[in-house]
Amino acid sequence: MPPTQYRTVHTIEVTEDRIGQSVTVAGWVQRRRDHGGIVFVDVRDATGIVQVVLDPTEIPDAHRLRMEFCVSITGKVRARPEGTVNPELATGRVEIGATELVVLSPADVLPFMIEDRVDVDERTRLEFRYLDLRRPSMASNLVARSRAVGAMRRVMDRLGFLEVETPTLIVSTPEGARDLLVPSRLRPGTFYALPQSPQLFKQLLMVAGVERYYQVAKCYRDEDFRADRQIEFSQLDLEGSFWGREEVLETLEEIVVEVVRELRGVELERPFPRLTWAEAMDRYGTDKPDTRFAMEIADLSDVFAQTEFRAFSGTLERGGVVRGFNAGAQETSRSRLDGLVERAKELGAKGLVWMVVEADGTIRSPVAKFLSESELTDLAQALEARPGDLLLLAADDRWRTAATVLGQLRVELGRPRGHDELAPLFVIDFPTFEPTDDGGWAPSHHPFTAPVDVEQMATDPERSISWAYDLVLNGAELGSGSVRIHDPEVQEKVFEVLGIAPEEAERRFGWFLRGLRYGTPPHAGFAIGIDRFVSILCDEPNIRQVIPFPKTQTGADPLTGAPSPVGDEHLSELGIMLRPGLREPTSEG
Amino acid sequence: MPPTQYRTVHTIEVTEDRIGQSVTVAGWVQRRRDHGGIVFVDVRDATGIVQVVLDPTEIPDAHRLRMEFCVSITGKVRARPEGTVNPELATGRVEIGATELVVLSPADVLPFMIEDRVDVDERTRLEFRYLDLRRPSMASNLVARSRAVGAMRRVMDRLGFLEVETPTLIVSTPEGARDLLVPSRLRPGTFYALPQSPQLFKQLLMVAGVERYYQVAKCYRDEDFRADRQIEFSQLDLEGSFWGREEVLETLEEIVVEVVRELRGVELERPFPRLTWAEAMDRYGTDKPDTRFAMEIADLSDVFAQTEFRAFSGTLERGGVVRGFNAGAQETSRSRLDGLVERAKELGAKGLVWMVVEADGTIRSPVAKFLSESELTDLAQALEARPGDLLLLAADDRWRTAATVLGQLRVELGRPRGHDELAPLFVIDFPTFEPTDDGGWAPSHHPFTAPVDVEQMATDPERSISWAYDLVLNGAELGSGSVRIHDPEVQEKVFEVLGIAPEEAERRFGWFLRGLRYGTPPHAGFAIGIDRFVSILCDEPNIRQVIPFPKTQTGADPLTGAPSPVGDEHLSELGIMLRPGLREPTSEG
Repeated sequence: MPPTQYRTVHTIEVTEDRIGQSVTVAGWVQRRRDHGGIVFVDVRDATGIVQVVLDPTEIPDAHRLRMEFCVSITGKVRARPEGTVNPELATGRVEIGATELVVLSPADVLPFMIEDRVDVDERTRLEFRYLDLRRPSMASNLVARSRAVGAMRRVMDRLGFLEVETPTLIVSTPEGARDLLVPSRLRPGTFYALPQSPQLFKQLLMVAGVERYYQVAKCYRDEDFRADRQIEFSQLDLEGSFWGREEVLETLEEIVVEVVRELRGVELERPFPRLTWAEAMDRYGTDKPDTRFAMEIADLSDVFAQTEFRAFSGTLERGGVVRGFNAGAQETSRSRLDGLVERAKELGAKGLVWMVVEADGTIRSPVAKFLSESELTDLAQALEARPGDLLLLAADDRWRTAATVLGQLRVELGRPRGHDELAPLFVIDFPTFEPTDDGGWAPSHHPFTAPVDVEQMATDPERSISWAYDLVLNGAELGSGSVRIHDPEVQEKVFEVLGIAPEEAERRFGWFLRGLRYGTPPHAGFAIGIDRFVSILCDEPNIRQVIPFPKTQTGADPLTGAPSPVGDEHLSELGIMLRPGLREPTSEG
Repeated sequence: MPPTQYRTVHTIEVTEDRIGQSVTVAGWVQRRRDHGGIVFVDVRDATGIVQVVLDPTEIPDAHRLRMEFCVSITGKVRARPEGTVNPELATGRVEIGATELVVLSPADVLPFMIEDRVDVDERTRLEFRYLDLRRPSMASNLVARSRAVGAMRRVMDRLGFLEVETPTLIVSTPEGARDLLVPSRLRPGTFYALPQSPQLFKQLLMVAGVERYYQVAKCYRDEDFRADRQIEFSQLDLEGSFWGREEVLETLEEIVVEVVRELRGVELERPFPRLTWAEAMDRYGTDKPDTRFAMEIADLSDVFAQTEFRAFSGTLERGGVVRGFNAGAQETSRSRLDGLVERAKELGAKGLVWMVVEADGTIRSPVAKFLSESELTDLAQALEARPGDLLLLAADDRWRTAATVLGQLRVELGRPRGHDELAPLFVIDFPTFEPTDDGGWAPSHHPFTAPVDVEQMATDPERSISWAYDLVLNGAELGSGSVRIHDPEVQEKVFEVLGIAPEEAERRFGWFLRGLRYGTPPHAGFAIGIDRFVSILCDEPNIRQVIPFPKTQTGADPLTGAPSPVGDEHLSELGIMLRPGLREPTSEG
């Protein structure tokens, strides 16, 4: 950047080779110390910090300076006196002897210190987000996010994708209870919806002949706020025509590799491992396995096929399963073990069997006495048990319950802290449908996902596999995608299995289904959640750390007071009014 | 792009050097002709068109093919027979002799042809936008837009800007009658607003220490729909700290030059011309002058200082002006001239004086007889009148009325068709305030714009000039920006002139003004309207031609039926209901 009226150099440029030169820096007062009448100030800008020395007899304003004043300072670069060199600072061998100080603007007393290690509640941080973002870790998160998105775009450009913006004021489907709505003023009584994703528009872009589409899209989901979700979020949305799954997964690998290279300077190995959904559930008890640690879950039904232990034999007789994993060396106090049993029940298990392998190889467990010697030996072998290991077993009539409970315990006992290691993988071959409570079928992914075998999908929905796939990183789902249905007749068959009558399909998606009738190319795509991806790469515990101005978990913005009450007149112009009986909130929070 | 299961090459790659090779292409049937039992098909993909020849005795499905069927065809590349070469086509020397045809999906009868020269109303085009976008000109507009935005991002990257996303569910200001609102479900009775621009958030990013910010931002404005406006639109939004006007204008030049180079292959001359607002109004009668043609407006008050023509002398005595311009050679039938007078009145003038310079140099005009010989001579000289020229004069008590009426007539009479030539310029030195009807002051730009002279701003608001500037291209405002106020005390003074009491300022902008109190750097920025910029470079008459899925001028989307009615239950959950007396619309349109 060329010099401006406020600075000739950034602080990072103030190094030994400028000694003797006059420079002007601009930034914020990070620290200020008085030493025998001389004022030492650390000036911070976007590139770093430099020390400035001011003599108040020459520069009387030096005494005015307080933390976070915004200043422009001119002075001569000189070597620091011996013994005062700071090797941790890029500019630590020099200082600026100030000849001129301009206070660009003063700062009130701060609500918290501009330092990484500051203990302040998140609400206050959000209320003063513009100060929170000055902290080094937050500032570097902003940079990382920008670089990550830049890396994504670089790949998209390289691969010939067009960036296309889809509308954000779209039609609300009659069932779209989780749609955020926008009342129309020109057509009072009608509403736009904010998109939950650009799904149908990007599919229509494929119909339109755009062969490679991408967009960093804002999406909206009016959920009950859950930990680490935001009402608005950003995704890298992409789609390709004349594509199958392989083209999507290859593109995703390119993206992930490039972003990781950009932020971590690390070269990920390709191809990424692929697990079928069934395999992921079997071995890790989840569809988003964290493979940075083993503790794989094993089926123990064979081990206990002949057991006389009623809890196991009864389950097996009813067609259930006995599964377990070796949690390795763990703290095994009685209270800890009781806690694990409680946790398993909380997660939906009927119970949990723990076994501790003693130093002599014997097994300590409340159920040990019910098991035969050979069962214990086979079990130890199946789980590769060694002295000191904790083994955890669950028996359940439903394979899925046993799998997911153990999968969750596995994560809670084994997941590494942080994200130094990166283990990306794909989960493929998802089931097409999930059973609903009323005995019907719901789409596992969404109703536009292509089944692998259309015939089987109709006759045996339970076993039907779809062309859906997820990208998983360190146990977090970064995004999901699928090959879409491009044949209107297949689409109709899927609706049939889902119990969606033609009239209902027309009412809900007619405008989209009509588009499929004009020569739709086969197409497939994906969406990557940018917030989550960047937060993992920045090793941050939640996505709010990488969102410049996030909302709280109840959707509030402590900075601006949104959402807030609105005047009746404005509402009336939009054709709406507050629901009677709804007490009008009096505060703006 | 590597081959997929549907194609081994794009059509553009099917050239003479592949003769003898077997290839698979995929795309749409652009044309289909039967010739003596042989079927000729033009296959179109994103890169172009190739001719395929099918023998129905070998490929029976060839007879099924209709326009816009989506197909994958394998065959051998061969030279076209002599006399059938099409030199206008990149692939015009070859054809593919089909060996295999896969109909990927059929197409219904089209509502209109997929050709550029098709006469179909815009509503139908929007209803079937996915077909409209297949037309070559629309497809190339999509590509141009993507490349334009890519070029903008390239400049931003090069200059070290961070891409930062600001929130789109923000606080609604009590006076924000043009805010689009989003009812909150978790806090029924309260609302978010969609941003009219990221203005305050980007200023807070400057407070936060982000020194260079940019974003391609969706913005929303709930205006009564005007020609060529959209309820949602995109802008390249940027801001820099420790910046003044020069840094912004230089950055804008870099962006415009790069985008024009990308889309037009033309190198624009730098620096761009700069006109002060006063100069632009004086010479062109508008703050967005189109300088591709002259027809400059001249002040004629001196010419008529002694006139006895009452209409002029009366105006001048009252402190008004007489102004005019030479419209050059024009059709000067009586009805045309009467039409111009009518148009001037429609635009707010009291009248319009026309004068036609005859072949012998004499002036034909209804008012000629009231003017002296020397007045006519001086006038002819002032306007450089030559035989055949049409001169148009307006007298008005208000300089601004005379200026703008003539400025509008100038454009209507002189503006070139299309945008072959590009004439970018900056308008600078805007007035800080505009008078309001009730004798007060409103901001010309927005209330956060820095006045050049704070003292004068307070004592003589009428003459106060601000650090605001516009980017103009071929008579269209591409965007505007300013140096912002970074000193809370200056901000307070501006509010004072605007008649905004401290309590009102606190209520409307308190959360933002608080941010200014923690060491705000001087900063400045801009926003470029992407839709308008790209539509000019694509030489399209309106912005809807470069928006993938635009709304009509009443905010409707003929494709999806948005906006549409929503169920009472959903509304109730959001704490709202339809206003009584509002007849619930029954159709979804």
